Amino acid sequence: MSYKILGKSVNRVDAIAKVTGKAKYAEDYFEREMLVGKVLRSTYAHAKIKNIFIDDALSLDGVEAVITYKDLPNIRFATAGHPYSLDKNHRDVEDRLILTNKARYVGDAIAAVIAKDEIIAQKALKLIKVDYDILDAVFNTEDAIAEGAPIIHEDKPNNIIASSKIEIGDINEEFKNADYVFEGEYETSIVQHCQLECQNAYTYVDENNRIVIVTSTQIPHIVRRIVGQALNIPIGRIRVIKPFVGGGFGNKQDVIIEPLTAAMTLAVNGRPVRLSLDREEVFASTRTRHAMKYKIRTAISKDGKLLAISMNNQVNNGAYASHGHSIAMSAASKFRPLYSFKAIEVKPTTVYTNLPTAGAMRGYGIPQVCFALESHLDDIAIKLNMDPIKFRENNFISLGYEDPLSGIKVRSFGVKECIKKGKDLIRWDEKKKRYKNITGNKRRGVGMACFSYFSGTYPVSLEIAGARIVMNQDGSVQLQVGATEIGQGSDTIFSEMVAEVLGIDIEKVNVISIQDTDITPFDTGAYASRQSFVTGAAVKKAAKEVKNKVLEIASRKCGLNIDELDIREGIIIEKKMGDEICSLSDIALESYYDREFANPITTDISENVKINAVAYGVTFAEVEVDIETGKIKVLEIYNVHDSGKILNRKIAEGQVEGGVSMGLGYALSEQMLFNEKTGQPLNNNLLDYKLQTILDTPKIGVDFVETIDPAGSFGQKSLGENPTISPAPAIRNAVLDATGVAFNKIPMNPQSVFEKFKEGALI
Amino acid sequence: MSYKILGKSVNRVDAIAKVTGKAKYAEDYFEREMLVGKVLRSTYAHAKIKNIFIDDALSLDGVEAVITYKDLPNIRFATAGHPYSLDKNHRDVEDRLILTNKARYVGDAIAAVIAKDEIIAQKALKLIKVDYDILDAVFNTEDAIAEGAPIIHEDKPNNIIASSKIEIGDINEEFKNADYVFEGEYETSIVQHCQLECQNAYTYVDENNRIVIVTSTQIPHIVRRIVGQALNIPIGRIRVIKPFVGGGFGNKQDVIIEPLTAAMTLAVNGRPVRLSLDREEVFASTRTRHAMKYKIRTAISKDGKLLAISMNNQVNNGAYASHGHSIAMSAASKFRPLYSFKAIEVKPTTVYTNLPTAGAMRGYGIPQVCFALESHLDDIAIKLNMDPIKFRENNFISLGYEDPLSGIKVRSFGVKECIKKGKDLIRWDEKKKRYKNITGNKRRGVGMACFSYFSGTYPVSLEIAGARIVMNQDGSVQLQVGATEIGQGSDTIFSEMVAEVLGIDIEKVNVISIQDTDITPFDTGAYASRQSFVTGAAVKKAAKEVKNKVLEIASRKCGLNIDELDIREGIIIEKKMGDEICSLSDIALESYYDREFANPITTDISENVKINAVAYGVTFAEVEVDIETGKIKVLEIYNVHDSGKILNRKIAEGQVEGGVSMGLGYALSEQMLFNEKTGQPLNNNLLDYKLQTILDTPKIGVDFVETIDPAGSFGQKSLGENPTISPAPAIRNAVLDATGVAFNKIPMNPQSVFEKFKEGALI
Repeated sequence: MSYKILGKSVNRVDAIAKVTGKAKYAEDYFEREMLVGKVLRSTYAHAKIKNIFIDDALSLDGVEAVITYKDLPNIRFATAGHPYSLDKNHRDVEDRLILTNKARYVGDAIAAVIAKDEIIAQKALKLIKVDYDILDAVFNTEDAIAEGAPIIHEDKPNNIIASSKIEIGDINEEFKNADYVFEGEYETSIVQHCQLECQNAYTYVDENNRIVIVTSTQIPHIVRRIVGQALNIPIGRIRVIKPFVGGGFGNKQDVIIEPLTAAMTLAVNGRPVRLSLDREEVFASTRTRHAMKYKIRTAISKDGKLLAISMNNQVNNGAYASHGHSIAMSAASKFRPLYSFKAIEVKPTTVYTNLPTAGAMRGYGIPQVCFALESHLDDIAIKLNMDPIKFRENNFISLGYEDPLSGIKVRSFGVKECIKKGKDLIRWDEKKKRYKNITGNKRRGVGMACFSYFSGTYPVSLEIAGARIVMNQDGSVQLQVGATEIGQGSDTIFSEMVAEVLGIDIEKVNVISIQDTDITPFDTGAYASRQSFVTGAAVKKAAKEVKNKVLEIASRKCGLNIDELDIREGIIIEKKMGDEICSLSDIALESYYDREFANPITTDISENVKINAVAYGVTFAEVEVDIETGKIKVLEIYNVHDSGKILNRKIAEGQVEGGVSMGLGYALSEQMLFNEKTGQPLNNNLLDYKLQTILDTPKIGVDFVETIDPAGSFGQKSLGENPTISPAPAIRNAVLDATGVAFNKIPMNPQSVFEKFKEGALI
Repeated sequence: MSYKILGKSVNRVDAIAKVTGKAKYAEDYFEREMLVGKVLRSTYAHAKIKNIFIDDALSLDGVEAVITYKDLPNIRFATAGHPYSLDKNHRDVEDRLILTNKARYVGDAIAAVIAKDEIIAQKALKLIKVDYDILDAVFNTEDAIAEGAPIIHEDKPNNIIASSKIEIGDINEEFKNADYVFEGEYETSIVQHCQLECQNAYTYVDENNRIVIVTSTQIPHIVRRIVGQALNIPIGRIRVIKPFVGGGFGNKQDVIIEPLTAAMTLAVNGRPVRLSLDREEVFASTRTRHAMKYKIRTAISKDGKLLAISMNNQVNNGAYASHGHSIAMSAASKFRPLYSFKAIEVKPTTVYTNLPTAGAMRGYGIPQVCFALESHLDDIAIKLNMDPIKFRENNFISLGYEDPLSGIKVRSFGVKECIKKGKDLIRWDEKKKRYKNITGNKRRGVGMACFSYFSGTYPVSLEIAGARIVMNQDGSVQLQVGATEIGQGSDTIFSEMVAEVLGIDIEKVNVISIQDTDITPFDTGAYASRQSFVTGAAVKKAAKEVKNKVLEIASRKCGLNIDELDIREGIIIEKKMGDEICSLSDIALESYYDREFANPITTDISENVKINAVAYGVTFAEVEVDIETGKIKVLEIYNVHDSGKILNRKIAEGQVEGGVSMGLGYALSEQMLFNEKTGQPLNNNLLDYKLQTILDTPKIGVDFVETIDPAGSFGQKSLGENPTISPAPAIRNAVLDATGVAFNKIPMNPQSVFEKFKEGALI
């Protein structure tokens, strides 16, 4: 397929808005006499609230209201940003109150103050006295599921949110027939999204007695539903507005602060109230990435064929369910269409602990399983004395593979070409040879890792998206989508799609970046790398409808059949001879003002996408390990992606660079730390958390293998989350290559590396 | 037809918003660091601008910019709120610049200042020096069209904007055959809308380099087009937002301040600028009602049959064309489907003068022609010694009448019943008898007048309206219309229509009262009493589409044919047996989340209405005239309307009360006065203008004759403007009845009455 706009490095449509500071984020909105909300948070990891004394706070001048669980409906709700399911069994775990009567982690929301300004609100918080009944707490999965462990939620007496067993093929048979069986244990730690813009929202009751919530969210339509549920208010009385958003990475795919802000405005007769979390609150009281502990057994034939894999996965979910078991299930699924196992058994268990709640984060469980599996494969390759790449290539599935459980079919499979490009970029063979017998204090090595990932959530969840296009009198259009631009560039991609289909300049497409649930077409939001794939299908459908309406008018004017006509650069042409019929703006003007036929061109459609496409990619990394200090330096890193057709090269590269940077932190430095006895967060700020900075980051190499997937509306597959998945195991494998030491736990920060080296007698 | 909601006195949907002050008008919107714009206005009625010196103003601290015509494109544009016409000959007269290089009335916009606050802006205005070349000025039509008169617009050397001759039948033949010929001259004065909210707007350039105009307008989509034209900016780069509006009455059916506010923001790099006119500016520099001078000749047969009428009408249009000749043409048309003349000849001439510009005002020329015609008919009846009612009844057209020029057909004709009701209400026969020979200082009398009026502008103009409905998950809906609520209650009527068609409570309809041209369905706006009639047709169509989609889902669920199903009170029922199938909210939820069929219910439609309906009505008035002081007191006044089906009794009554109040002012007190030599306005404020207050207003009686017109989507016809039309001639005829003195000029304020009585030797 040849496109005029798609595939080019078109500038972001919001570039100027953002660099000039004109883009309005939720905190840039302003209402006169807006009040400030603040949250009183538990200082204990696990404690019943016996009593709360709010009178001193209430009597402070400038305090408008203080609310606790006693003031709110006793309705448990789920916070996960999933589409609602008509099937009760597929709904998320409802274990939250807006304000709790039992603290389950240090930071749990106990009470809220609404005051005239922030200083008064802070003072008032200190005047609230809470009488706690302190309970034993558990912070890791083993302790949580042990006999006699404290019960975090009464209805889950073993602290297990869910556990499951996924089986493909005959696992026992394959292990029985195996020539070799390998085992390994791999562990990832809790990290955080660290999106630039902290969660914040403001809320008021409007002139029609409806609750309006302006919030920094990935999922405005879901916020609307969940606020309604949490407060027992019909969804039609709630309106959610999503302005510009400064990043989410999954942390804003949960409905965390909005029910509380709605409760706050209701407590003050509908006056506007703003709630802005600070960074410490974001770290402890929004969402984290699940720590997972994998135990893997793999059956291999003597010719190096993978026969079967058995994976046991304990998932630390923290204090509330949030996305619950679905991230563990994602990790159990999305790795499958890559290697050709005859049998697979995955047993994930998702466990409550008294830590901050884990939820969606870029990759949705796959960075964890990829770290475990791709580390494991390198461990096996070494033991088999096989080249790790050849070992993998020897075991890849083939084009046309259909996952027996999900039914997802592989219609494009570019991972081998990705490997080829990656090898060339990093000069694999040359370096492999050069570093083979490296010794001394600074040792270098290369490593790689592969991954597979899905495009959206089908068939697990409903994948629905809406788009509305309105053509102006000059032939320019407005585009409304329910899908949310949160920094990833989706508005630019959608604008390109419309311009491509309509044969107009992208400058003629005014994408409405602000979602407003009252009028924005329904879409479940930004997650699962679904937008280009799922919403893209809706946008294409809408644009084609508009094009058709334009050509119908042109056909009426010129007599030629609609099939003979096309739009090129804003001109209606007769396709065969290339004759110019008239301009698109002529048609647009007529559509508004023709006395006989006036009917302005609009379309308002929804698309229920019932397909998925598997994206692939590899990371190649070269490291230098300082044996004495334990410092790992990534010298070069390349991500090569098969994400189908690349719709905008520049934005795609940006996505990959950001994702790899996140992967570098995951591998090397990032980790949320807690006091082992109290559960108190120890590094919940950007100074101590050790996010990667530009100084830590090597040049990130990016390339693509552009397969054209027939499931993508323009041949595209997912790309948003993908780049985060494979850097950590690639770096880990490079370190193994450099030092012979297998790190089975991340992050590989200097301290852990030093300890491991000591343990392995390297130092 | 029987309705559940329509026809009831449903409360206005914006009642609470308005009484609580939560409704946001343009001046309630706020942008940080908003600048203030002010306009320097001409102090001469007619003067060329030789030079403007702005340096002193520019150097004042806090002044951001000063603009004159030199800074703006030299593009002449029309301000009239009419739909654009593809036919060049049907477009409005383009005679305006945003800032003029020649003053044509006292108040013409010469220059504009943009400053940090209003005080600085006012100071800066005083520092601008204008070097004028003062020209002779003309203030009435006779002077303006006289030989050698000063030329106001170079391309109209005789100062005539347009003149025309409308002919039906053989006028000469009828006059030749007439038994009697009567002549009369009637004159109306310049009045103003006096809407509560003065024109105001604020404008900025948004993050996507588009011009955003938040303005108090009746016609947001037309504002968008005209701003684009005036500044030579593609329409797609302009976005107009209409918030709550505090009245318009036609004064906001012109695009007066918006091109200037757009020019202002462009002069300061897109920073937000607010321009709010004060009341004096509104009086002089927005729009007025045309003064008209009628010369009428009427041919009558000896049995009192009207044979022919010839009307000569000179229309004082003021300095700029605005709606141009179309108001004179309206006055020449809308009276026709009432009395059965065999021949009609109307010769209107619309003339430029150096007075404020006349434009659209409630009734659009018909209050003027109605005053002339209905006064004339009473004059004839007296001369024929006939009862004025019987005389009229004797000459009414019949149901089925089709106007030969417009093709408009009378499908409902309730004026006779209106007269019957009105007579009863005022106790006509009794009072007629009682006051017959009244003498003394205080004399009483009764009078009446009839009118006909159209519903919208078809076939003169395009009548197009759009509506979009989005159904929420709970079965409630959002309704978006391009038609504008400006106080008249249209949002309530549309909500009722949707609730009626969908079988739901009106509380379940969230009408979006703010129009935003980016996303609001196209509609030309609030004028010509078109909204219930024209937009109503679109709303009904949209609601029926939504209902159909709901029933399709229900049919899929229950197997019954869609024709067997209906929605009643939010429940899907089987019509014959009345069985309840499921709730509407069940259907709504499924439409969002059904894995197989999800497709949220929306509709986004446009309706090109190609029909008109003639509404009718009468005013009956009883007056007491104080012979010594010239004070006329209206004791009782009744308006009875045939506006087809009354959609909301309470709102309809409100419309009539407001309209009659406006008619009382028109008859008795309102009049814009100007210095006869300089053209300086003398009473351009609410104290001196003599608007009717509640103390001047008798109890206004309202009643309706509910014909059902097949052209109305629910049997309705126009009502908004109608009540203003006939009070003035009814009062005039009552004064004639009381005193024997025929006032052929309004207002009949004490001074003019006193002078007339003196002239007629009554005192």
